[in-house]
Amino acid sequence: MKIFEQHESNVRSYCRNFPTVFNKAKNSIIYSESQEYIDFLAGAGALNYGHNNDYIKQKVIDYLNADAIAHGLDFYTLAKEQFISKFFSSILNPKNLDYRLQFCGPTGTNAVEAALKLARKIKQRTGIFSFMGAFHGMTTGSLSITGNKKIRAGIFGIANDVTFMPYPYGKMANIDTLEYLESVLDDSHSGIEKPAAIIFETVQAEGGIIVASIQWMQRLRALCDRHDILLICDDIQVGCGRTGPFFSFERADIVPDLVILSKSISGYGFPMSLLLIKPKLDIWKAGEHNGTFRGNQLAFVGATAALEYRGNIGLEKEVKLKEFFLKNFLNEKIKSIDEKIEIRGIGMIWGIDLGKFNDPMLVKNIADHCFDLGLIIERVGRNDTVLKILPPLNIEMPILQKGCSIIQKAFIDCLIQKSSSNSELEKIGI
Amino acid sequence: MKIFEQHESNVRSYCRNFPTVFNKAKNSIIYSESQEYIDFLAGAGALNYGHNNDYIKQKVIDYLNADAIAHGLDFYTLAKEQFISKFFSSILNPKNLDYRLQFCGPTGTNAVEAALKLARKIKQRTGIFSFMGAFHGMTTGSLSITGNKKIRAGIFGIANDVTFMPYPYGKMANIDTLEYLESVLDDSHSGIEKPAAIIFETVQAEGGIIVASIQWMQRLRALCDRHDILLICDDIQVGCGRTGPFFSFERADIVPDLVILSKSISGYGFPMSLLLIKPKLDIWKAGEHNGTFRGNQLAFVGATAALEYRGNIGLEKEVKLKEFFLKNFLNEKIKSIDEKIEIRGIGMIWGIDLGKFNDPMLVKNIADHCFDLGLIIERVGRNDTVLKILPPLNIEMPILQKGCSIIQKAFIDCLIQKSSSNSELEKIGI
Amino acid sequence: MKIFEQHESNVRSYCRNFPTVFNKAKNSIIYSESQEYIDFLAGAGALNYGHNNDYIKQKVIDYLNADAIAHGLDFYTLAKEQFISKFFSSILNPKNLDYRLQFCGPTGTNAVEAALKLARKIKQRTGIFSFMGAFHGMTTGSLSITGNKKIRAGIFGIANDVTFMPYPYGKMANIDTLEYLESVLDDSHSGIEKPAAIIFETVQAEGGIIVASIQWMQRLRALCDRHDILLICDDIQVGCGRTGPFFSFERADIVPDLVILSKSISGYGFPMSLLLIKPKLDIWKAGEHNGTFRGNQLAFVGATAALEYRGNIGLEKEVKLKEFFLKNFLNEKIKSIDEKIEIRGIGMIWGIDLGKFNDPMLVKNIADHCFDLGLIIERVGRNDTVLKILPPLNIEMPILQKGCSIIQKAFIDCLIQKSSSNSELEKIGI
Amino acid sequence: MKIFEQHESNVRSYCRNFPTVFNKAKNSIIYSESQEYIDFLAGAGALNYGHNNDYIKQKVIDYLNADAIAHGLDFYTLAKEQFISKFFSSILNPKNLDYRLQFCGPTGTNAVEAALKLARKIKQRTGIFSFMGAFHGMTTGSLSITGNKKIRAGIFGIANDVTFMPYPYGKMANIDTLEYLESVLDDSHSGIEKPAAIIFETVQAEGGIIVASIQWMQRLRALCDRHDILLICDDIQVGCGRTGPFFSFERADIVPDLVILSKSISGYGFPMSLLLIKPKLDIWKAGEHNGTFRGNQLAFVGATAALEYRGNIGLEKEVKLKEFFLKNFLNEKIKSIDEKIEIRGIGMIWGIDLGKFNDPMLVKNIADHCFDLGLIIERVGRNDTVLKILPPLNIEMPILQKGCSIIQKAFIDCLIQKSSSNSELEKIGI
Repeated sequence: MKIFEQHESNVRSYCRNFPTVFNKAKNSIIYSESQEYIDFLAGAGALNYGHNNDYIKQKVIDYLNADAIAHGLDFYTLAKEQFISKFFSSILNPKNLDYRLQFCGPTGTNAVEAALKLARKIKQRTGIFSFMGAFHGMTTGSLSITGNKKIRAGIFGIANDVTFMPYPYGKMANIDTLEYLESVLDDSHSGIEKPAAIIFETVQAEGGIIVASIQWMQRLRALCDRHDILLICDDIQVGCGRTGPFFSFERADIVPDLVILSKSISGYGFPMSLLLIKPKLDIWKAGEHNGTFRGNQLAFVGATAALEYRGNIGLEKEVKLKEFFLKNFLNEKIKSIDEKIEIRGIGMIWGIDLGKFNDPMLVKNIADHCFDLGLIIERVGRNDTVLKILPPLNIEMPILQKGCSIIQKAFIDCLIQKSSSNSELEKIGI
Repeated sequence: MKIFEQHESNVRSYCRNFPTVFNKAKNSIIYSESQEYIDFLAGAGALNYGHNNDYIKQKVIDYLNADAIAHGLDFYTLAKEQFISKFFSSILNPKNLDYRLQFCGPTGTNAVEAALKLARKIKQRTGIFSFMGAFHGMTTGSLSITGNKKIRAGIFGIANDVTFMPYPYGKMANIDTLEYLESVLDDSHSGIEKPAAIIFETVQAEGGIIVASIQWMQRLRALCDRHDILLICDDIQVGCGRTGPFFSFERADIVPDLVILSKSISGYGFPMSLLLIKPKLDIWKAGEHNGTFRGNQLAFVGATAALEYRGNIGLEKEVKLKEFFLKNFLNEKIKSIDEKIEIRGIGMIWGIDLGKFNDPMLVKNIADHCFDLGLIIERVGRNDTVLKILPPLNIEMPILQKGCSIIQKAFIDCLIQKSSSNSELEKIGI
Repeated sequence: MKIFEQHESNVRSYCRNFPTVFNKAKNSIIYSESQEYIDFLAGAGALNYGHNNDYIKQKVIDYLNADAIAHGLDFYTLAKEQFISKFFSSILNPKNLDYRLQFCGPTGTNAVEAALKLARKIKQRTGIFSFMGAFHGMTTGSLSITGNKKIRAGIFGIANDVTFMPYPYGKMANIDTLEYLESVLDDSHSGIEKPAAIIFETVQAEGGIIVASIQWMQRLRALCDRHDILLICDDIQVGCGRTGPFFSFERADIVPDLVILSKSISGYGFPMSLLLIKPKLDIWKAGEHNGTFRGNQLAFVGATAALEYRGNIGLEKEVKLKEFFLKNFLNEKIKSIDEKIEIRGIGMIWGIDLGKFNDPMLVKNIADHCFDLGLIIERVGRNDTVLKILPPLNIEMPILQKGCSIIQKAFIDCLIQKSSSNSELEKIGI
Repeated sequence: MKIFEQHESNVRSYCRNFPTVFNKAKNSIIYSESQEYIDFLAGAGALNYGHNNDYIKQKVIDYLNADAIAHGLDFYTLAKEQFISKFFSSILNPKNLDYRLQFCGPTGTNAVEAALKLARKIKQRTGIFSFMGAFHGMTTGSLSITGNKKIRAGIFGIANDVTFMPYPYGKMANIDTLEYLESVLDDSHSGIEKPAAIIFETVQAEGGIIVASIQWMQRLRALCDRHDILLICDDIQVGCGRTGPFFSFERADIVPDLVILSKSISGYGFPMSLLLIKPKLDIWKAGEHNGTFRGNQLAFVGATAALEYRGNIGLEKEVKLKEFFLKNFLNEKIKSIDEKIEIRGIGMIWGIDLGKFNDPMLVKNIADHCFDLGLIIERVGRNDTVLKILPPLNIEMPILQKGCSIIQKAFIDCLIQKSSSNSELEKIGI
């Protein structure tokens, strides 16, 4: 690892929490030379179909062997044609959704930037409303709508006209956050102009796994309609089936004006991002937003195969079953350990919030202990006090259970053993 | 193509100029179902080693077959280790350069954004100087330092503290642009604060193939030193050997503080970007700039293979030979056609500037005619009046010559034939 | 009036509501050639001591006759010395307050701008929190912290880093506005940085006569202390005795870090403004904020005389008596007319809010009718639905009563007479 | 002076250079208790008619005695009517100029802010071009177009969309500054949008007495016409006859779209400012820019009297004579002392530039020595190396001569005596 410490910038981060050199991966397991790890991080959401998914892999290798277009800017290519076709036939059409597809620079943040630009262009207003706790990316525009002050510092306040609104979490859960938002819009002296768009996540993942209620999302959609404001759904982390249906907003039966996809869209961890635009809003002029890699052909190949794979194995149903398992496990086996523990989540994204312990080191210790025990798990949320459970959607049940057991053991080791007698452990069923 | 026109956003651009569906490519040739095209666009600079380079391709397929890490966030991986090792041994060490490597979100614009953030953080100043004619990318931060007003409009003026300075081109070539810049810094009443950094391209490609002189670059470096300003070289388009040596600034014998690479760094057109940071400037804290795809493993594999390939075939020398050919050809065969034609370029990036004709359609007609004749060539610069010649660096000489002949024929057809008699054509050697 | 309509800019406003040419004024009466008007506007708060107050006038004329300094930039002058001396002996010292005095450009907005600059300089943070409904002035900095969107439009969003917080009014009165504000500060992911200062009015006058509670102000002060944020009180309109004591914040027993005075400080309607700075915060360097007229000597003379006059006549006590009268009158005689009427106020600033009628013309009609009946009264607040009662503090009781009777008559004429029978009028005591 | 040092903010500045308490003034002389001073500062340009001008004074006292309106917001008043009438009959009409009059908050900076707002509203563009070296005031908007970096720091870069263009001074005098400006506008890739307006001073006073040439101003006006940009003339310091004619731009025979007046417009040093707007550009809505003191009635009275006074004494002609005297004196008696001295000026504003001595203390010493010898003179320009000669326009010739002699003596004492023998002094005629 010396070469990394010597030559790679200090900015590297995940590797610090999982300090080993990985060399192989398959499905839900990732390997270093000497050990194997269950992966509850799944490429931060980019590996919903697991590592090196065999079905997708074969399509990719075939494509490479055929000397098909590997890099094609935004040329018309067969790989892109097939993806568009499959995306409509298997996703948009069955859901009665109609969107134009913009292939952005292949990172989520690039599609967020495109969405902000397009929204401002459509409405000819510069304001954007974002929510406290939101995470949308690290380039200047995306960072301007991201709540985390530590990373926001990078833009030195020089991108602006963003207003942060309360998201129903923490103390803000005590007020009617959307009534607040609407009061601001309705008050001619509030000092805050009507924005071009409101951007939201149905589940704030980096914010700490905060799940918006169906009613809240429906009211948000209605509010945007009432005030002629665009609604942008950033579905980068919790789209592509993470909460069950392909889009995370489906459970609320709403249709955002713009939808941002990335992470797992390519199916194989290849960089790709997609902005979905309601057809009548597609007022872009040619080339107004571009980028050299916006046609990552291998990603198109992977994405098409991934959509086939989803259908073949009935993934959405599988997620429901695992959601049921995770919900029960976390509430029965983990929450019961200490009443200060909070469990939040939906589908296959769950958080174990230890914020009430007021002890950030505790959470780090648990995560580190998990790693020692063979599990990769990330910390998110305010002060990094939330353990985020984000396995590949197609993780085999025994591996999912094993990963959960590791978490349980780590909690017991870090929280209970030192202070509790065996009899007390027995009481909670360990 | 109907599916694209119906479902892909209006923002698509290259495909409008080259309206066919491509399905295969090899080295310097790209194929549609019915035709083949010589590629003088080379993925806008992302394909310096040609399409589906066999050497690189084999390494990539082997890697996929081995189920090595396909997506690894910024984990320590074997693929990254091998790239770092090779990049130091074959590039940095022989040139006596020392930089820390930051793997950014895999687009050039992401690395530009990282550079801006880091520069501001280092100097604790918010200002950036950029040059008129510059192109640095389409996300908010990068767009704020990009000169093209039409695309800048996308940020609605809400990212700021950027000052545009004159680049020695057009009427600005009549003044001493760096004396101007320094006068601004020296004048306590100029209204313009000392910036954190000055970002520049050694060759403004999108600006119209404007080649900075060695003396200008050396004076710029000295000026930055004098005023404690960081110098950032955006080597996205003309790095990776495009001008001959690996870095385009080598010809001036200067060392920028930060260097941005992307496009051809991965060798195979895979998305990748790299920020090089002088070791003492690497003051990032862990995770201050991040991104899901910043470790595009397949790109690392391609990049390592590409560096091997460069050495194996002696690419730098080859570029010099082709530069000689292109320079002669363009000046003798094209410039001679009409004195209003200007030729500019270096290495294997050349521009034929038709601005003095005051006829944007003329340039479009020539490019379209080239396409009909089997050549892909792009227009850049103010009002898109510059034809940009940007073939793969390893293009076979006969193909390079054939591509050039097509250009010549297109010029004659569009500029001369209608107005000139045969005898006049003979006079200029056609 | 033709000359005004022809040659004065369309921006003129008050004159449109009171369309006559005034030529004389004394105490609480202002005269046109043909009519006299009771003045319930008092120079928008600049004439707390009435028009052409005899005591002050004599001092001013004596000063002019003596050829004492009429204009002296910020030179040391006798007039300034005497004002400083009197301001300390009669105001600051008895209240155990200690402030440095900054004489700003002689408009309230100039002192607001100075306060913002100084606060940012002290804390080296750029953010300012202001409150919805706030009015602080019309120059770029002051407008950036003013809530009224119609007039804010003038800055086109190009001054920034201001966050508007809820003021306890309207729907926002349903939430704990300061808990909201503190939650934003406490949340590391709220997207909103800790500001340099919070600026507030103890009574939002232009916002619609919204009186902050004592408890709210005390909690605001404590919150600022807790978070190391400066507290700025804009006492331009309701300072100088308008609410009773000299400073309006005295009733809450708090001490702001910066206090802004203007309007009535000069006593005679002469332009003057004053920024009070806690001594340890006076980190200005010489000349960092300046202005040609910041030493308006005649204003100093008036201001000194005004402070003498206040003491001589026991003004504070008088205000208390008139407050009692106004409160009773408005609640008994006006509010009783219709339950949709709301009465708000303190000291000698009162508002009759007709917002619930949803009929902006109604309020305009009442004000116009008052003018016809010989009373000058302004409309403020959201949609201008609040009649603002702001007489000179030293108005003679019979004139105050007469002015109030005119209001009552105007209400009856506009609200009741058309729709009500005489017997109904009798029931409400008319 | 103790009371000032103890209680007045550190921001005070002029008083530090002239540390005495002034108590009386008449015409061109200002008195402390023990000494008298010739005033070559003239209230920084606010006292073009001298201190306590008898003609104006009598009108002001009469007005006060009559209990005419002392404070009238923007009501229609007799005082305002008379000023408008006189301003048209004696200034605008004879010059064939037609402007609407906006009475702004009574400080120059307030009128600058109004001009910026109006220009942006008219053109619906946010950009403003200002010139390096410019000074326009200390509120956020005005400061954003002011070049002095030390005082600009106060806005922390949070007001923007201002571009500084070179003014023909210093090294910038070597380039064609207006060709530079137009190149920026013409270049579609310059990164700098077409502004709403260009604001300029015909003589940069604070910048160091830099006089724009007639040709430069005419080209600037033509350039603005060509590009549909408004031209704003800030005539605060050099208008009102300072350069001879009432407006300083008259010598170039151009008509700006907006003109800003303040300082000497009221004639007596009373705060007042005026924005002149071409009638067709007066698109203000009522109240879009306002302010409590924008109708400073005493200032109107003074201003009317001042215009009468100008005519009565034939002031414009007098200025021409004194310009001739000053020009000769400075070039013959001062410039001859040392070739490093530069003389610049026009009308009755002149600068002695000692920048080439690279010795800021030298200039301060000379100014201090002048003060000791009974002359008040200010330092301006880059590093405060320019002595600014700005006497009242109606200064009596003997006093003007005496003031000049004091300057000469101070130069000799500070520059020559120590280093030169008597014979050398004789050679230069002393």
